[in-house]
Amino acid sequence: MPAKKPDYNRLSLELHKKLKGKISITPKGKLKTKLDWSTMYSPGVGAVSQHLAKNPKDAREYTMKRNMVAVISDGSAILGLGNLGPIPALPVMEGKCAIFKAMADVDAFPIVLDVHEPEEIIRVVKAIAPGFGGINLEDISAPKCFEIEERLKAELDIPVMHDDQHGTAIVVLAGLINAAKVTKRRLDQMKVVVVGAGAAGRAVTLLLVKAGITNIIVTDSQGAIALGRSGLSDYKHELATVTNPNKITGDLMQVVEGADAIIGVSGPGTIASAHVERMAEQAIVFALANPIPEIMPEDAKQAGAAICATGRSDMPNQINNSLAFPGIFQGALDRGVRDITDDMKVAAAKKIASLVKKPTFDKIVPTNNEPGLVKAVASVIK
Amino acid sequence: MPAKKPDYNRLSLELHKKLKGKISITPKGKLKTKLDWSTMYSPGVGAVSQHLAKNPKDAREYTMKRNMVAVISDGSAILGLGNLGPIPALPVMEGKCAIFKAMADVDAFPIVLDVHEPEEIIRVVKAIAPGFGGINLEDISAPKCFEIEERLKAELDIPVMHDDQHGTAIVVLAGLINAAKVTKRRLDQMKVVVVGAGAAGRAVTLLLVKAGITNIIVTDSQGAIALGRSGLSDYKHELATVTNPNKITGDLMQVVEGADAIIGVSGPGTIASAHVERMAEQAIVFALANPIPEIMPEDAKQAGAAICATGRSDMPNQINNSLAFPGIFQGALDRGVRDITDDMKVAAAKKIASLVKKPTFDKIVPTNNEPGLVKAVASVIK
Repeated sequence: MPAKKPDYNRLSLELHKKLKGKISITPKGKLKTKLDWSTMYSPGVGAVSQHLAKNPKDAREYTMKRNMVAVISDGSAILGLGNLGPIPALPVMEGKCAIFKAMADVDAFPIVLDVHEPEEIIRVVKAIAPGFGGINLEDISAPKCFEIEERLKAELDIPVMHDDQHGTAIVVLAGLINAAKVTKRRLDQMKVVVVGAGAAGRAVTLLLVKAGITNIIVTDSQGAIALGRSGLSDYKHELATVTNPNKITGDLMQVVEGADAIIGVSGPGTIASAHVERMAEQAIVFALANPIPEIMPEDAKQAGAAICATGRSDMPNQINNSLAFPGIFQGALDRGVRDITDDMKVAAAKKIASLVKKPTFDKIVPTNNEPGLVKAVASVIK
Repeated sequence: MPAKKPDYNRLSLELHKKLKGKISITPKGKLKTKLDWSTMYSPGVGAVSQHLAKNPKDAREYTMKRNMVAVISDGSAILGLGNLGPIPALPVMEGKCAIFKAMADVDAFPIVLDVHEPEEIIRVVKAIAPGFGGINLEDISAPKCFEIEERLKAELDIPVMHDDQHGTAIVVLAGLINAAKVTKRRLDQMKVVVVGAGAAGRAVTLLLVKAGITNIIVTDSQGAIALGRSGLSDYKHELATVTNPNKITGDLMQVVEGADAIIGVSGPGTIASAHVERMAEQAIVFALANPIPEIMPEDAKQAGAAICATGRSDMPNQINNSLAFPGIFQGALDRGVRDITDDMKVAAAKKIASLVKKPTFDKIVPTNNEPGLVKAVASVIK
């Protein structure tokens, strides 16, 4: 009989009640002597203010901006729980900030927003941006997350990344690189089906395209996204223009025929054994819905899958954003990189994949305690 | 020959360059084991989010909101330096946050704003408020600071305080209580002249009125503020209605005749020896402009002042906001106080005054390392 799994929900509630907040503020300088007070604060700090008034770029040298990321959410798409608003988003964002510090020594602070229209979110983030060196958008629903990220990237002079999109995409690509290696495929010749066209689905797809995969079909609840399908939203139309070169239509059962890999970024139950059975030999199945995958790995294997990956820490091949975002932001902050480009994301994925010296069916990505992980990822953000 | 004073400006620039930010983020829980990850973050944290969706008030029990203050500035009135904008404000706000933690174990985080219209500042602060347990407004210019604070107090369900106004007012009242004691006056029978009608001048005046002082005259660059003076702004008209009962007009030289106390909250040079000479015997002179007082204490004493106070740490009787704000916010956070009322401010001033067991000419207020100071102030915020 397998050991009973801990009741994470109960234990997490208890831990949160005990900690009363998962982050605290630590002064980096002492405030004991009169000299401390006069240099940490008034009157000496006035000289720093005057210096920065003349040389605003020196904020990197003299202030917290150098190493401080804002982790921002309006709580419209919290984990797999949906639109619960800012207060329920707070413990998630605090956790993310704790991870930033523990993994990458990046200071990060949660800002949860009581505004929800894209234009208002953009306005507020721009207003509070001067004190930060980077913006990590988190748990903001699609499609508004696309416009918000795009506008902020264009209008701010610091790096902005919506991690649900790009962190996921980077780690999926890393996993796919090694899955291809293990199953002796060429990445650029694979047929890949992406199940789900939300924030993660769109970003995964665009990054796979960027990495050279041409035969990708994205499906949503209406089936394959293809040019000519009526009623496509703007961003789905954009997806249709860069994927599905043969304009295949139909439901997932039709689309999945002969696919080398299927990537679920939707919700529990959207991938069935029958789908996997129609895929190519040595099929690759990423079922990333959390906490309940689109298909359980044992079912996928039963149906012929060679490699399964999920978002879960208690199963092999965890596709985990924390493999990417700490190093991405550490690199961007350390080098004053203004824009995290698609080329950097592909390079980060390749770097993450390369950390698994000998990929196997059950080990296509490193774990997030892999020595040197963060520094390795950071090294390609330049 | 006196010892040469340290070059605080140079030392502060060096310290800031060394620290690269005066605060950092510390995770309060570990992220080592799988259990840590699963309870600090996903999947367990989802249970906390769901709990908070149903019980938003429990954010006090489960999140950082319980002990987190936002220190917010648009940089429009930085120290005595003027409107330098958000980046130059950042080191000042970081310093304030370091003081919050060092003195009161209150977590505080600086937010510097790239918007400057009152309505926009209000909108942004309201948008980011859910994650915070209190709002400390700082270095925002008058008169917009009045409207911003008033609106936020009315529209948010957490305590909001503009420290340049009320922190200063509380400590001035504390000092005046003990100065009256030392010079054997009754507070409510004193004639007090307030020189300067900016953010601090208005707040000091209103708190002295609240404490029972009826004979107060406020002066600005045009002389005494009195009902009937033409061109009074709204808030100066409000000051005129609660002060200057005899509708005295004229410049400071006329107004100061026989005054028991003069409180300078304006700028260097606005109080002259000749003014002090016209005051009552045993005159009380608070010259609070920083770093250069309205009149130097030695000049004031030469002109007959019995008690002098300044904002400076290198002179006796430092009227220092840090005597008040750490305890004010600690008390408000610990008791979930929504509104910091005038009664609480008067009580805080009396409490601070009471910590000086035997006030003397050179010791009318405690120092900010007085044992028990923060807890004593916090105890009256209820």
